[in-house]
Amino acid sequence: MSEHQKDKVSSVERFNQLSTTLQDTKKTLNTALEEIKVLKSSVESKEQNKDRITDLGKEITALQAQVNSLTKEWRKADPDRLHIDRKEFDGLLNRRSFVIPSFEIYGQTAGLYDYGPPACAVKTNVLNLWRQHFVLSENMLEVDCVCLTPEPVFKASGHVERFTDFMVKDEANGECYRADKLLEEFCDSQLSDPNISQTLSDELTLVKKHIDSYGEKELGQHIVKYNILSEAGNKLSDPYRYNLMFSTPIGPTGKITGYLRPETAQGIFVNFKMLYDYNGNRMPFAGATVGQAFRNEISPRSGLLRVREFTLAEVEHFCHPDDKSHPKYDSVKNVVVKLLSREAQTAGQAASEQTIQQAMANKNILNETHAYFIARTQLFLLECGVLPTGLRFRQHLSTEMAHYASDCWDAELLTSYGWIECVGIADRSCFDLEQHTKHAKVDLTAYELFSEPKLSTTIDANLDKKKMSTLYGKKTGAIIKQVNSLGQVDRQAYKSKLESQGQVNVTIDDGEVISLNKDVLTFTEKQVRTNGRNYVPSVIEPSFGIGRIIYCVLEHSYWVRKTIGGADEEKGVPRAVLSLPPTIAPYKAAVLPIQHNDKEYIKVTNQVISNLTKNTISYRVDTSGQSIGRRYCRCDDIGIPYVITVDSQSVDASDASVTLRERDSCEQLRVPIHEIADVIAQLVNHQTSWNDTKEKYPTQKQTASEQVGKGK
Amino acid sequence: MSEHQKDKVSSVERFNQLSTTLQDTKKTLNTALEEIKVLKSSVESKEQNKDRITDLGKEITALQAQVNSLTKEWRKADPDRLHIDRKEFDGLLNRRSFVIPSFEIYGQTAGLYDYGPPACAVKTNVLNLWRQHFVLSENMLEVDCVCLTPEPVFKASGHVERFTDFMVKDEANGECYRADKLLEEFCDSQLSDPNISQTLSDELTLVKKHIDSYGEKELGQHIVKYNILSEAGNKLSDPYRYNLMFSTPIGPTGKITGYLRPETAQGIFVNFKMLYDYNGNRMPFAGATVGQAFRNEISPRSGLLRVREFTLAEVEHFCHPDDKSHPKYDSVKNVVVKLLSREAQTAGQAASEQTIQQAMANKNILNETHAYFIARTQLFLLECGVLPTGLRFRQHLSTEMAHYASDCWDAELLTSYGWIECVGIADRSCFDLEQHTKHAKVDLTAYELFSEPKLSTTIDANLDKKKMSTLYGKKTGAIIKQVNSLGQVDRQAYKSKLESQGQVNVTIDDGEVISLNKDVLTFTEKQVRTNGRNYVPSVIEPSFGIGRIIYCVLEHSYWVRKTIGGADEEKGVPRAVLSLPPTIAPYKAAVLPIQHNDKEYIKVTNQVISNLTKNTISYRVDTSGQSIGRRYCRCDDIGIPYVITVDSQSVDASDASVTLRERDSCEQLRVPIHEIADVIAQLVNHQTSWNDTKEKYPTQKQTASEQVGKGK
Repeated sequence: MSEHQKDKVSSVERFNQLSTTLQDTKKTLNTALEEIKVLKSSVESKEQNKDRITDLGKEITALQAQVNSLTKEWRKADPDRLHIDRKEFDGLLNRRSFVIPSFEIYGQTAGLYDYGPPACAVKTNVLNLWRQHFVLSENMLEVDCVCLTPEPVFKASGHVERFTDFMVKDEANGECYRADKLLEEFCDSQLSDPNISQTLSDELTLVKKHIDSYGEKELGQHIVKYNILSEAGNKLSDPYRYNLMFSTPIGPTGKITGYLRPETAQGIFVNFKMLYDYNGNRMPFAGATVGQAFRNEISPRSGLLRVREFTLAEVEHFCHPDDKSHPKYDSVKNVVVKLLSREAQTAGQAASEQTIQQAMANKNILNETHAYFIARTQLFLLECGVLPTGLRFRQHLSTEMAHYASDCWDAELLTSYGWIECVGIADRSCFDLEQHTKHAKVDLTAYELFSEPKLSTTIDANLDKKKMSTLYGKKTGAIIKQVNSLGQVDRQAYKSKLESQGQVNVTIDDGEVISLNKDVLTFTEKQVRTNGRNYVPSVIEPSFGIGRIIYCVLEHSYWVRKTIGGADEEKGVPRAVLSLPPTIAPYKAAVLPIQHNDKEYIKVTNQVISNLTKNTISYRVDTSGQSIGRRYCRCDDIGIPYVITVDSQSVDASDASVTLRERDSCEQLRVPIHEIADVIAQLVNHQTSWNDTKEKYPTQKQTASEQVGKGK
Repeated sequence: MSEHQKDKVSSVERFNQLSTTLQDTKKTLNTALEEIKVLKSSVESKEQNKDRITDLGKEITALQAQVNSLTKEWRKADPDRLHIDRKEFDGLLNRRSFVIPSFEIYGQTAGLYDYGPPACAVKTNVLNLWRQHFVLSENMLEVDCVCLTPEPVFKASGHVERFTDFMVKDEANGECYRADKLLEEFCDSQLSDPNISQTLSDELTLVKKHIDSYGEKELGQHIVKYNILSEAGNKLSDPYRYNLMFSTPIGPTGKITGYLRPETAQGIFVNFKMLYDYNGNRMPFAGATVGQAFRNEISPRSGLLRVREFTLAEVEHFCHPDDKSHPKYDSVKNVVVKLLSREAQTAGQAASEQTIQQAMANKNILNETHAYFIARTQLFLLECGVLPTGLRFRQHLSTEMAHYASDCWDAELLTSYGWIECVGIADRSCFDLEQHTKHAKVDLTAYELFSEPKLSTTIDANLDKKKMSTLYGKKTGAIIKQVNSLGQVDRQAYKSKLESQGQVNVTIDDGEVISLNKDVLTFTEKQVRTNGRNYVPSVIEPSFGIGRIIYCVLEHSYWVRKTIGGADEEKGVPRAVLSLPPTIAPYKAAVLPIQHNDKEYIKVTNQVISNLTKNTISYRVDTSGQSIGRRYCRCDDIGIPYVITVDSQSVDASDASVTLRERDSCEQLRVPIHEIADVIAQLVNHQTSWNDTKEKYPTQKQTASEQVGKGK
């Protein structure tokens, strides 16, 4: 963790300490309040205890002030929030066009956001890294599937029936709300009142913890109990299920109902056979896909974290339901992860750090493949620039699991809004393939060859058709059909009965019961060798919300630099820095010519640019003519790790060097023009470090106007 | 052009020659038919000309055979079709899972296709190349915008009213058809009849040429004229306008109408101000965006070429409407392009090759920016692997232009279906920004500083309000309002009148006419300096249909290798090859261990793989245990340019080399294991050529089973 990111995450220990102090102080306050109440209970008592009442009054005032200041401190130390100034941070995202409400010029439509140039470049980089980390390194089979989906697919997957949220409506004006979010907001607003009673505080803390598991009944009961009203102050309807899928008719007749997919996974499931075939019918293997998904959220809030259209990157790893081992498990078994298991949550315990191997031994994680993807997800998120202390894996409670999941661990990232689910790693078992097999009436199985052929006993039924036709005439056909349709279990029973009682009864199509004896019917046992069998594969699914990951990485990489003077400071521009890893940063380099109209400077600038392009290093040129300090700030704002300045020495043929500035330390070196692109390429590709680079090139002294402060 | 691609495109000359021969032969045939008709006109004549009739009969039979075979040859030489066996080609796309109808297990929904692993990888590569070629090389501002769009946006852009096709309905069963496609299919089926009369052939050829420009009236008239019926043989309705946008309500109340965007461009237009600001208020600049677009096609045919969901990559280059010069124009002015101008089409001429500079001089292309993007588009398409002879730029006829375009050139690629529009390069002038300014009531202008301040005269109106209130009492206010609202032209006229006649009349709100004289009203002229002005920028838009480009590149790179023997030949697998450029190929390399269960082979294979991964070279491993020839074929099928074979020499420590095979030539070299990844990286990144590599490493002799034939 670098210096500037230290204070953003608070420790659980400090928070717990503050909680205890706060509660003790509240208790002392309550005792004093009780005492003063008793003392003031009658005119006589008041008169008798005058002095004590005065003292107590002073004490109470002091205690109340103490409770208030402790509450503030306690809230600030919340380990479940990232401590950044969100107003300033949002200001940065807006000022540098990271994110814009879509169609803002027409007034915003809630839940839709566009990415401006820097965020768009970050997104491309995150997706490239994802493909490198998952698809290419693991030889996954990536497919590209459409968003428009005909209804039968989501009927089979269960989404038409069960992909719902609970909605309540303002009975007067028709405004819609998500019942659970409304209840949660109510809890939050009550809990933030420092004078809330301990009883109500405990009650609402418990309610808040269990909201995700409430059904429509519980939600309705709580809304009535706490008399929660709409924003306009009106009564609310009972909660009811509302489907989150956008629907649109496909084709000109309007007869085919279509949905915009709410997840990209189904594209892989319906193509299972093609992928299995492409993989040479070998198991296990993983499919992967990247694309847009759509959810018609009831009332999207929290800015970028709950939106109606978003990019998902999903992996479906198909394996044998009885063997979820992973060939590369050993490579991750010593990775340390912070886990918040179902049991820990129920017991009110905090997340605990353990190795993947320990988590498997504890039976926190149930199989190697699930464990493998939890570890690989952590490695990916850290490469994206997530703070290690701001990452945990939380297991779903059995009540909050999606309808298709048998187990699920979310990678949650800490933000100023709290812990946010960014990756869901679910064991979908055989649910989806079984559902599609049933609904589409196709075979979606894999074939397994037994390690050695298995022997099993089967019972053949032998009928003397000639004798039967003499005895039963026209009914013979119906009898034969009935006997042949008997399963192995029935045949065993019939065989025993025939042997013990000499005859058995069969019921033919028209309901008539016919007796058959050993003359016409016998059963013989036979040994059969089978080499293998078909089975429905199980699925482990890591599903990445790309937009959420980007948002969290931006919060995690954000800090404010202490300024140390210079001409620009008065202008009130905050010295924000995004310490994004070079892999993710929107541009790897910026080029700033001190003079932007001078021919010589333009020549050197073009020379530098052309070398950067040859090394496929993305860059921005800033020829705005503003002060160099101001321009450095603009680069820091969008997280450009390396800035090249073309100055008077650069245009002096006897020197021909440029300044190279590192974003986080503000350190500057002088590097020859013809080497600069190579140096940056090596830094960006992790072939060298900044410290090693510093040893190779002379340091550049900063002029006053270039100084924008180092560290905090 | 490489050897194998030569025969796929026919020359216009050869086709014209064949056309002439065919027409001449038809004429001779007609003359003979006329003559025999006359000779057979009466019994006497028949009797008298018996011998001549016999001779003529023989001659006619021969001529008819000649017409038939010439027609076949003529059709094969069609320069407007790519000559590949489409059935075989489609078989390859299916066999190797390039493309699958979406949700095929549920029966296909027309117009929706998924990309399997190889096509998905090709798509990622094409988009990366696009970003490199346009966004990064040109410092464009890429944005990422949502698909869901509220109605007001597409009302402003004109899509709600005008983004329509003409539809006809089967009046009996309600089946829908696109009127123009129905007429086109009718023309095609008639024209393919060798016995069609010359008159009808000429007529339908003309109709086909103008279909794109027909409105509902002309389409209806032709459908009636040729008695075109539905597939079921029923009568069709009159053509009517059908909007191609998918609509879906946004939010839970159902009150906000949304559309899935039919183009991605609007995301850039509505964000114009943000981009202009991000660019430091400097012009010109270009926005870019990549994403899904949706069109609810009436009855999608032609497989991958007309689909309901597709990926677009669009550039919007904003420039001054009076100055569409491009700073980098000089770098492309000598590029030779094949242009089919509006004039050439009207005159029935073929496309002509010319340099960009010539096309500008001829006024075929009207401005530098339009010309620049035509050239850059060509360079991009050629890098993607398009055949130079299979690319042309066709200008839209004024009747077929989209409602927003003032000029448009399509990059068309030759396919087995004919010439297909893959990139539209439109001059959208100021249409979109003006529309959004009007509808959203916001300022979407750029500011230009004049090279020197401009002086202009304005006329001020001076009123003596004190005198007026004495003269006009309560009406004074209305008079002042009226005078102040006069424009500069009116003020000039009033001034002259007041000077010549001593008084002027003004009409106030209630209709009363009031006379004013010089005592209360005077006009004075004033010189004003203006430094610049706001203007609505013009837009040049290159819009790339990524799916179409991929399909065409696959057709262009496809050929069938002549086999020269070997064990696999009997199995009837066609020896297809996709000669994709390495940049675009789904994987750059394949690794084939001859033994897939032997520890030593596995060790070497893993060593090779690990080196490839370090060099970020994408690869597939084929351990299927099939013959090496068979496995080479599989690699050729999906266009893998380089194949590494791990054989007995590879596991021999004293040798430790692998075989490197080049896809198009089938040539094989022996390369040391520790050098193989570097060699491939250099080949793929164009740092060395295959010929240079051949000089550095010894040739590997092929064994019989590895031989799959070289060239044709």
